[in-house]
Amino acid sequence: MYELGVVYRSIARADGQVADKLGEYGSATVHEAMGRTGLMKPYMRPVYPRARASGTAVTVLLQPGDNWMMHVVAEQIRPGDIVVAAVTADCTDGYFGDLLATSFQARGAKALIIDGGVRDVRVLEEMRFPVWSKAISPKGTIKATLGSVNIPVVCAGALVNPGDVVVADDDGVVIVPAAAAAQTLDKAAAREANEVQKRAKLASGVLGLDMYQMREPLQRAGLRYID
Amino acid sequence: MYELGVVYRSIARADGQVADKLGEYGSATVHEAMGRTGLMKPYMRPVYPRARASGTAVTVLLQPGDNWMMHVVAEQIRPGDIVVAAVTADCTDGYFGDLLATSFQARGAKALIIDGGVRDVRVLEEMRFPVWSKAISPKGTIKATLGSVNIPVVCAGALVNPGDVVVADDDGVVIVPAAAAAQTLDKAAAREANEVQKRAKLASGVLGLDMYQMREPLQRAGLRYID
Amino acid sequence: MYELGVVYRSIARADGQVADKLGEYGSATVHEAMGRTGLMKPYMRPVYPRARASGTAVTVLLQPGDNWMMHVVAEQIRPGDIVVAAVTADCTDGYFGDLLATSFQARGAKALIIDGGVRDVRVLEEMRFPVWSKAISPKGTIKATLGSVNIPVVCAGALVNPGDVVVADDDGVVIVPAAAAAQTLDKAAAREANEVQKRAKLASGVLGLDMYQMREPLQRAGLRYID
Amino acid sequence: MYELGVVYRSIARADGQVADKLGEYGSATVHEAMGRTGLMKPYMRPVYPRARASGTAVTVLLQPGDNWMMHVVAEQIRPGDIVVAAVTADCTDGYFGDLLATSFQARGAKALIIDGGVRDVRVLEEMRFPVWSKAISPKGTIKATLGSVNIPVVCAGALVNPGDVVVADDDGVVIVPAAAAAQTLDKAAAREANEVQKRAKLASGVLGLDMYQMREPLQRAGLRYID
Amino acid sequence: MYELGVVYRSIARADGQVADKLGEYGSATVHEAMGRTGLMKPYMRPVYPRARASGTAVTVLLQPGDNWMMHVVAEQIRPGDIVVAAVTADCTDGYFGDLLATSFQARGAKALIIDGGVRDVRVLEEMRFPVWSKAISPKGTIKATLGSVNIPVVCAGALVNPGDVVVADDDGVVIVPAAAAAQTLDKAAAREANEVQKRAKLASGVLGLDMYQMREPLQRAGLRYID
Amino acid sequence: MYELGVVYRSIARADGQVADKLGEYGSATVHEAMGRTGLMKPYMRPVYPRARASGTAVTVLLQPGDNWMMHVVAEQIRPGDIVVAAVTADCTDGYFGDLLATSFQARGAKALIIDGGVRDVRVLEEMRFPVWSKAISPKGTIKATLGSVNIPVVCAGALVNPGDVVVADDDGVVIVPAAAAAQTLDKAAAREANEVQKRAKLASGVLGLDMYQMREPLQRAGLRYID
Repeated sequence: MYELGVVYRSIARADGQVADKLGEYGSATVHEAMGRTGLMKPYMRPVYPRARASGTAVTVLLQPGDNWMMHVVAEQIRPGDIVVAAVTADCTDGYFGDLLATSFQARGAKALIIDGGVRDVRVLEEMRFPVWSKAISPKGTIKATLGSVNIPVVCAGALVNPGDVVVADDDGVVIVPAAAAAQTLDKAAAREANEVQKRAKLASGVLGLDMYQMREPLQRAGLRYID
Repeated sequence: MYELGVVYRSIARADGQVADKLGEYGSATVHEAMGRTGLMKPYMRPVYPRARASGTAVTVLLQPGDNWMMHVVAEQIRPGDIVVAAVTADCTDGYFGDLLATSFQARGAKALIIDGGVRDVRVLEEMRFPVWSKAISPKGTIKATLGSVNIPVVCAGALVNPGDVVVADDDGVVIVPAAAAAQTLDKAAAREANEVQKRAKLASGVLGLDMYQMREPLQRAGLRYID
Repeated sequence: MYELGVVYRSIARADGQVADKLGEYGSATVHEAMGRTGLMKPYMRPVYPRARASGTAVTVLLQPGDNWMMHVVAEQIRPGDIVVAAVTADCTDGYFGDLLATSFQARGAKALIIDGGVRDVRVLEEMRFPVWSKAISPKGTIKATLGSVNIPVVCAGALVNPGDVVVADDDGVVIVPAAAAAQTLDKAAAREANEVQKRAKLASGVLGLDMYQMREPLQRAGLRYID
Repeated sequence: MYELGVVYRSIARADGQVADKLGEYGSATVHEAMGRTGLMKPYMRPVYPRARASGTAVTVLLQPGDNWMMHVVAEQIRPGDIVVAAVTADCTDGYFGDLLATSFQARGAKALIIDGGVRDVRVLEEMRFPVWSKAISPKGTIKATLGSVNIPVVCAGALVNPGDVVVADDDGVVIVPAAAAAQTLDKAAAREANEVQKRAKLASGVLGLDMYQMREPLQRAGLRYID
Repeated sequence: MYELGVVYRSIARADGQVADKLGEYGSATVHEAMGRTGLMKPYMRPVYPRARASGTAVTVLLQPGDNWMMHVVAEQIRPGDIVVAAVTADCTDGYFGDLLATSFQARGAKALIIDGGVRDVRVLEEMRFPVWSKAISPKGTIKATLGSVNIPVVCAGALVNPGDVVVADDDGVVIVPAAAAAQTLDKAAAREANEVQKRAKLASGVLGLDMYQMREPLQRAGLRYID
Repeated sequence: MYELGVVYRSIARADGQVADKLGEYGSATVHEAMGRTGLMKPYMRPVYPRARASGTAVTVLLQPGDNWMMHVVAEQIRPGDIVVAAVTADCTDGYFGDLLATSFQARGAKALIIDGGVRDVRVLEEMRFPVWSKAISPKGTIKATLGSVNIPVVCAGALVNPGDVVVADDDGVVIVPAAAAAQTLDKAAAREANEVQKRAKLASGVLGLDMYQMREPLQRAGLRYID
């Protein structure tokens, strides 16, 4: 049950530097560092290739076909934020285009994550303002019904609290709770360090079967080789 | 970010009688009473027609293709509960069938809501154990990886906290936070009382245009009639 | 480009008796009689089984998540009509429930065809008010933006002009232009008469291969039998 | 690569009695007895509820929007067969209706499984001729291009060889290779016998946690209980 | 009900210069200038990025899996036209590839809009012949059944009359009726002029809340700010 | 019914040079040369644009959410192979990322075809290791359940035997049985030679109507031209 018609102005944001560093590891590594949780649904795709962003979430709840609250959330953006927009029902309308992107960018927003549609994607790419959405559509919206800003929202299957860290890239979008950000960064760093060595071994032709010592458990599970 | 590998045994459940009464109003009325929020996605459908249930949520987080935690949640069921099962990734496997239904029913569960697949639907109907799911599939699952029980989960787009009220019927599934249950019941009752009168008027041929006094605002919005 | 904010009060309806008879032949036969055209997309499904209706179309164009015009169209319904509702964007919200059904039925409507969602489906079945829709959802709608009534609309992929004949059953929905209704009825009748004989032959074990004299054209096309 | 334009008249069918008995166990049990393989995709649904069938497969490969080969396969049906129809491309047209059903039934067919659409579903239910399909559509088809009969086909994700056992019910469709039918029957019987006892225990309130001795492995996997 | 087997050779095309200018404004602006109508469904996507086209529609109705009429429509193309292809049923086959693109381009066509599949997309990009389609598929088609050319068609949810203006870009496809083209161009120009100023203001940090004077209506609607 | 828990080490691969040449013709031409069969579903898309590969199939059957067998198949790769991965149920998890790609590439694999999800797509593009998949997802997988290597699999609707030729490009993926590879190459070459001439003619403005001599059959089918 969403609280409607409210704007929370004071939110506790995760550390921006931690958010930056998590972004360098990317969504797959961060998601693994969180025990394989925190992902948005894979239908969320960047509107242009090679988009990449991380930052702190300001959230907005929209009504279907209505982008009024987008203007309300714009005022709450601080540099380093990523706007996360949920909608109370499935709708592919284009809630966001070049004008709002100009405004968001001027306020310091690094990206938009929206469980709906966007438009003007050519201009978004030219502006280098990255957006992850479930649809692209020229369909415009109205301004008639209140939603909320900076309440907890469910966006593309993930719970997002204001201030959480958002990590988005070509693979998808992952949400790191603010309280877990530092710890997740440590785990991601450890995982990544580990992967560099593994990559070198695998590149030299060593098999994962040997590197991960899988041959014995596979045999125990009953794997049979037939010539 | 889900907490994995934990089972919370003590949860605060909403009042069971309130849950029962909310069920009588149905998902559409309850959702309206909550300001049109709280709904699961419309892909959640009952596995047999005319299914109807309401109760208090015990939640379970499953891993894709793995129903191990279904047996763990069974022990936490109290009479009047509805199990709400989320999965960490999209998966249509049949996590639940007649054996688990027998166990859940024996423990007093009134229904299952699962963002995945179920099987043995003919037997489920014979047992009158209602299930709302996103798929029906004979596909079996394994028991290899831990999830959690009675943590907050996102199920079919809705945030569900343990103890919340679940209202499910032919129209869909709506979640009422425990803290808002009593107030929502009042609003639903008021709304329903109001609807009885409206229905009688409409049945007699009175138009909504007149009953809701819409003619003037429609004219103001610019509506033109052409003969 | 839809004309917005208008209600056409005077429309030329197809002959109601022709509409009734077309309904007896069903959507598949009528669609064949029209040269295999006129169908709505197969995602349009009846909200309860064995629903069946035919009548003359009154059309309404809705805005996403907004059912204001449903009340406007109610006034334009005459006995024997079927309301055909299109939406300017994809939206699964529940635009229609038991109150509107009561009103439509009181005005003489025989059914609703809607390229969106509906709710209260249990009551709709009890009332025997059939609806074909693309979704079932408890999600309510607002009343804020004008659409139009009795303009030509595209509904689920089919062009529908006010006054056209609508034939809907378990198989789907087909639209017959008013000007073609009588001729289509003749063709449907001829087709059906023909099918009765065919059915008897096939039931006795005669093969379509022989009844339709397909063996020779199949051989000419190169079909080979291998023992 | 399908072989086109051929009809194999002599196929080795699985034992009909074995097929009958496998049908009694149902798709979920049979699929488990096969090591959790052999399933068609869950989008394959019966066109009326409580449909249930098992038999030996005769296969047909159709071209999109073309049901010519349906008449060719009719001649190859023997009592106890189930026709399994694949299409060379995704297409929801109604390839099959009451006339073909009459013919198939007269030839002794027990059901149709089709990775496409069907029509006349009301009549199919009245005839008690069960069909599992991916769509229902009144759309008719042409008769212009050859496919094949009784070649191996991929239908809804499952490889089906002529003569294989088909088991279909409310849960879905599973294919048992003819050579594995007897062995699968034994495993299904053992599994089912086992389930009767389990069901009684669970109904009496025994938990799966205890019945399956899961407490220890769950603890070893790290499950923590929190009061 | 489509008229089948006909080719209309004389169609009234919208002014080509108007079509060109509408293309410069793009689908989102043009759609807004039309009162937010005229859009095709958002599943219509360009087969290569940054594609952009506008022109006058020549329409073709295809049968599923059959591209015979593509050759018929080729002859009706005049320089500046865009071919709009509808199909009488859903089908993702590849109706169009490099050979037809060569022919269409030689005839002066500027693009293809097709509610089906296309192939040879790498070559289409090399040729700079833009296509908007619902699928990409190597699947070939047959030439067996008549459709029509230059009749009104429903393509991806939009009614398209021969001679209408088609505007397509990265955001989607919008159709402007020929009779409304000049007026729509005026509105689009006004809208665009207006947007240039707005963009500058927003870039300087002015909020939409202030620029559009939304604070007062938001407050009236009940929006509350909480610190 | 898949055989589980086995690895076939000795498979008969199609001629690598034939595979290379088939790749030059591309999926559309090869599919036509096979009588328009052999295609995977069009939901299989390259994870980066302009990807192109052909080679000999080594197959792997995965369990949902489990990539254990990916490490087993790595050992069976020989230079020129393409790994074809099927899953026993629908699952969009990311079974494959940069580490496995490094290993596969080191073993000589030319590509991966997977009826599931992959991740690290930015790195895959940098490595120029092409992948065709049904989804992109950062979601990681477990290593708990056996599948098989080098058994026949159904992948995205196509039957793939180990050693078959795989041809994949921007249009899609086609499978050529090893036994048919040489013959298919001949037909593809003939088809392509034929197309060069056709393309030149069409580019000069000759119509397909004349080049293919379609005017007479169209007239016979009843096509009417109306001025």
